[in-house]
Formats: sequence, C-alpha cells, structure tokens
Amino acid sequence: MSWRSDEALEQARDFDGLLITPGPDLTYFTGLKPPVTERLTMLILRHGETPHLIVPRLEKPEGIDAETWSDGDDPYELVARRLGRGRYAISDSAWAMHLLELQRPGLTFTSMTKALPMLRAVKDADEVERLAAAGVAADKTFDAVKELRFGGRTEKDVAADLARLLQENGHEQVDFTIVAAGPNGANPHHEAGDRVIAHGDMVVLDFGGLKNGYGSDTTRTVHVGRPTGEEQEVHDIVRLAQQAASDAVRPGVECQEIDRVARQVIVDAGYGEFFIHRTGHGIGLETHEPPYLVRGETQPLVPGMCFSIEPGIYLPGRFGVRIEDIVTVTPDGGRRLNNTERTIVTVV
Amino acid sequence: MSWRSDEALEQARDFDGLLITPGPDLTYFTGLKPPVTERLTMLILRHGETPHLIVPRLEKPEGIDAETWSDGDDPYELVARRLGRGRYAISDSAWAMHLLELQRPGLTFTSMTKALPMLRAVKDADEVERLAAAGVAADKTFDAVKELRFGGRTEKDVAADLARLLQENGHEQVDFTIVAAGPNGANPHHEAGDRVIAHGDMVVLDFGGLKNGYGSDTTRTVHVGRPTGEEQEVHDIVRLAQQAASDAVRPGVECQEIDRVARQVIVDAGYGEFFIHRTGHGIGLETHEPPYLVRGETQPLVPGMCFSIEPGIYLPGRFGVRIEDIVTVTPDGGRRLNNTERTIVTVV
Repeated sequence: MSWRSDEALEQARDFDGLLITPGPDLTYFTGLKPPVTERLTMLILRHGETPHLIVPRLEKPEGIDAETWSDGDDPYELVARRLGRGRYAISDSAWAMHLLELQRPGLTFTSMTKALPMLRAVKDADEVERLAAAGVAADKTFDAVKELRFGGRTEKDVAADLARLLQENGHEQVDFTIVAAGPNGANPHHEAGDRVIAHGDMVVLDFGGLKNGYGSDTTRTVHVGRPTGEEQEVHDIVRLAQQAASDAVRPGVECQEIDRVARQVIVDAGYGEFFIHRTGHGIGLETHEPPYLVRGETQPLVPGMCFSIEPGIYLPGRFGVRIEDIVTVTPDGGRRLNNTERTIVTVV
Repeated sequence: MSWRSDEALEQARDFDGLLITPGPDLTYFTGLKPPVTERLTMLILRHGETPHLIVPRLEKPEGIDAETWSDGDDPYELVARRLGRGRYAISDSAWAMHLLELQRPGLTFTSMTKALPMLRAVKDADEVERLAAAGVAADKTFDAVKELRFGGRTEKDVAADLARLLQENGHEQVDFTIVAAGPNGANPHHEAGDRVIAHGDMVVLDFGGLKNGYGSDTTRTVHVGRPTGEEQEVHDIVRLAQQAASDAVRPGVECQEIDRVARQVIVDAGYGEFFIHRTGHGIGLETHEPPYLVRGETQPLVPGMCFSIEPGIYLPGRFGVRIEDIVTVTPDGGRRLNNTERTIVTVV
C-alpha cells in the first residue's frame, strides 16, 4: 500500500494526516474489505510515518499488521492519542458516531471529498483497464438484453435477466438493474416493479455493478415497437446532449462545464425543466464517487478520471429517456468505455 | 410514523430534535429503505412539529410528503435553516461528510446511541413476534443443516447450504453464514473458506439475516464424529456460561452484568483469556444494534429488549466454540427465541 499512501499524503500537504474507514477508501489503500460496523476500524496515514491500522481484535485480518482493541476498550482514545492535535481528513462515509467521539479541542476534521477530491478520482492504467473491462461486460449485457422479449413481461422479470447477464459477463456484484417502462421512466429513481411492459412503451435500462472490483454503469433507453415522432425526437435530443458532453471532455475543462454542455442542448430544445439531475458521477471502486459533473464543481478534468455522462429527459406521467456511458479522460480528449448503439433500439 | 416519533421525542427531552438518516433508524420511523448515498436524505423530528423529510429530488419516494432538493442546491443550508440553534441527536451511521457540513456555531450533535440508546432497543409486541418468527426460521435451518454431510466438504459449501436454508425458511436477506472448522473456529471473525472439513473438526455455525424485516442470529458448534474429552469440556463450559447469562436476564439488571455472568463461568473454568469479545448485541431491524452486553454498559434491561447471548472460547491454532441465542426481556425474566439443543451435536 505504500506508494498510494505516499501519493495521497503528497496531495494532503494542508493536513496532518488522513483517517480512512471501511469502504472504498480503505480498499483503495489496503485491498481490505472489512464489514462496516459499530466497532471502529481506522487506517491512520501521517506524514513521515508508516501507515497505522487500528482494528477491533475480533475483526483483525490474518497476516496484516494492525493494532487491535477489545470490546470494553475505548478505541477513540487510542486514535486520539496517536493524532495529537491537528487537521485531519476523514473518509466521507465514516460514521457520525465515530467522528463525534473523535472530535475534541485541537483536532479538526474535513471530509475526504473536500480535502482530497482527487484521492481516488484519477485512475492509474490498471484501474482504467478494469473499468474498461467492466464496460465491455456491460455492453455485452445490453447486446443480449435487447434480443429478449419485453412486451408482456414485468419490469422485474427483465431486471432479473439484466442481473443474470451481468453475472454471466463476469460481474461479481450487481448493484442496480433499473427497468423503467412507460410512465415509470419519468421517475429517475424508479427501480423495477410489477408493471407489465406494453407495446408502445419506452423502457429505460440502467444497470451496473462490480467486475474485478471496479464498476460498470450504463443506460440505454429502448422502445417496444416503433416509437412515435415525439418519442424519437426526445430520444434524439438526449443522444445529442450526451454526444456534446462527451465531445467536451478534455483535460483542464471544469467538471461543471460538462454538465453545462449537456444541459444546454436540452434547454435549447425546450426540455430544460425536464432534465432534473446532474450530468454524471465518478466511478471506480464505487459506482458513485467523485468527481461529480454538476453545476458549481470547478474541479478541472485530469487524465485518468472516469465518470458517467448521463443526461435525461423525464416527462411526468408519460415517459423518460436517459443515455449513459462511462468516459475516461485521456491526454487529448475523452474515451468512452461503453460503446453500444446510442440511437433508439426497438425491442419486441 | 407519528406515534413512534412522539415517543422518541418524549425520550429526547434533553435535545431539540432528532436527525435521522437512511438506514434502520429511518426504516423504523417511516418504513422507507432509501439507498445510502452521497446525496443527503434526512428526517427531522422536532418537539411540537410534524416530522419533516428532506430528500434529493431524484430519490423522492412516490406518495410521501417531503421537501426535495436538486443537484447543485445546498441541502445542508436547507437543514440548518430548519434547525436554527440547539442540540440534536443524529443517526449513528450518518456519514461524516454530511455531519461536517451541518456542524456550525450554535448547533451541537450527539450520536443516537449516546442520546437515545433505547430508541429502537425496546421492541413492541409486533416486533418481538417478528424476531421470534425469525428465530424459529433460524432454528429450522439448524435442524436441517445438522442432518447434512460435513466431512469432506468445504466450509463454503456448507455456508451455501445455510444461506439456501435460511431463504427456504422465509429470510428475504441472508447477512452472514459463518462456517469455521477446526482451527478456523478459533478466529471469531472467520467467515467460510476453502478448508475441507475433516473428521474430528469442531465447526462453528453462526448464521442469520432478515425475515419480514427483522433479524435472526444464532450459533451452534457441532463436531464431526465424536468429540475428545477436552472438546466436550470446552463446549460444556460455553454452554453453562450461555445458560448462566440467559438465566440472569430480567428487568433492571445492567447490560454489563449479563456479560459479567457469562465471563465469570469461563474465567472460573480457567479459560478467561480465550473469551475475547463482548457477550452480545441487540437485534431488530439490524442484526447488530444497541443494547450491547459489554463491560461498562450500565443501561438496565427493560422488557421488550432483544439481544444475543453468545459467549465463546477460542483456542488459537486449535478450535473454537460459541453458542448463541437471541433472548428477549420479559417482565419477570428472559425468553429465548432460539431453542435448538445446546449440547454438542455430532454430525457426519
């Protein structure tokens, strides 16, 4: 883990150290995936010191050098003694319970996303290739799903097919399989329900998970039978917005600019009020992580960043369209990690 | 949700309100199970006010009254304006990232476990019956597992049987299926690996999950073929410790007293240094939650509390024994929700 902690501390010159709790940050530094529990596990990284892991005795991984504490001990005192006074960055998803016990005069904390927004955002070559392989697996999943019958089956049935195909294509973990037909597609948060998919439905398919530890996340919107002129038009607008945003990716451009470019296409077409979410999110050990492509995010893009570009239009009570690819920043632009057709696919 | 929020606020007289984030606390008050994400969702309960839910627009549940915020808005400002100044209790598992954004002069926070340790700890009759039903399902699982072949199969194979049987017995979620054979049993955190279970192995089986939303968690330690005298003796000590602790359950006794009683039996038998964890944990919407039966926990038992009693002895490099039942506090003692035999079971 040493090179990664050295590099992280190099980025963290304004802080006395980093406090890493179970979740993707800890996996990033150590490869460990301990359970997230009420018992404190914390990796302490401080300038000029060896990384120091504090774990409950009960959960100590075999073969790992760690300081243990037992039930009845005060693990916060253990951590606080080691920290002394100073400024520390702490994992976003650390429990409030743990943070509140650590807070004391002379110790201040900042969330990792604020302190080191780039901690895991810039992927190395191995990570990009894992994300690319997850993208290929997601594309194969879509290629297989679009051949299946949709009409007359429930959203949940199709979602089960998506999950099975993600696994058959090498995903060890399925995180989401959204199948949102007809008016359900107008709710971006709809997952998959008992609605029987009908001829004439638009169907949003948004699916992903982890393959070899890294995430996939792609969306295609298909149509059962031939789309109407309006459905075709809305789909075209979203496709052009997604294309424009992807074309805008290059080092030095601010994250919010990618959001602005996608949004402008949709606003210009008269559907601005129906694009009700940010344009994208980073992906890596998690399917949602920094950087976020959202208004106000002035972080410039850096080669190696990987994120979704997923504009959508949601027409309440009627239908929705979203198109999503994972894109990685290259030295001279962007490279899509999803490559199935973005034009509307007709299913049966 | 109103009666539960009234009752919680009644317990929270020292606080201006409660801040509830996704997880079991939110499920408890609203029945909702939104995803835990970087987007803030928070239920605000304040004295004399209607419960107020703040959710990302994207994740707003249908049919629920809530204030929404959109990507690019500042949800913390929204919450802080509503809170004003004062003291608030916040869900244990709220993200540090969210808490740090909420902290400002005049607003102080305490973790829910410290502020309201009893918030979900005392179950109502319906909850106890759900936990009892989960216990029955876990018992049926053990009754079926003990008839299976162990010798010559891997721990993982037996763990897969445990998972399948928990599901067949009505669990909608399997949380853990520990199968720790021979020396693996001496690591309380061991899950299930590639070890081929051999004749002569002690095997710790610790399994549970959620049935109808409420948890099961039971442990039995079986032996492949006839145990040695020492194995039998260690198993007997753990069984007597578990029995003594269960017998000590009654309203008014401190949580730490149950731990002390179990520990005393093991210390007196000369194995004190090999009982390396607390005696138990609460169970309900989570398989681990307050109250904790651990040294230092002076909370008195109250009728309706439900928790595990699970002493163990772990002999490094050799074997381990743990016996665990869920017990609920009744007006005049304790009632076990697991009832399979606690004497050593011989398997093939």
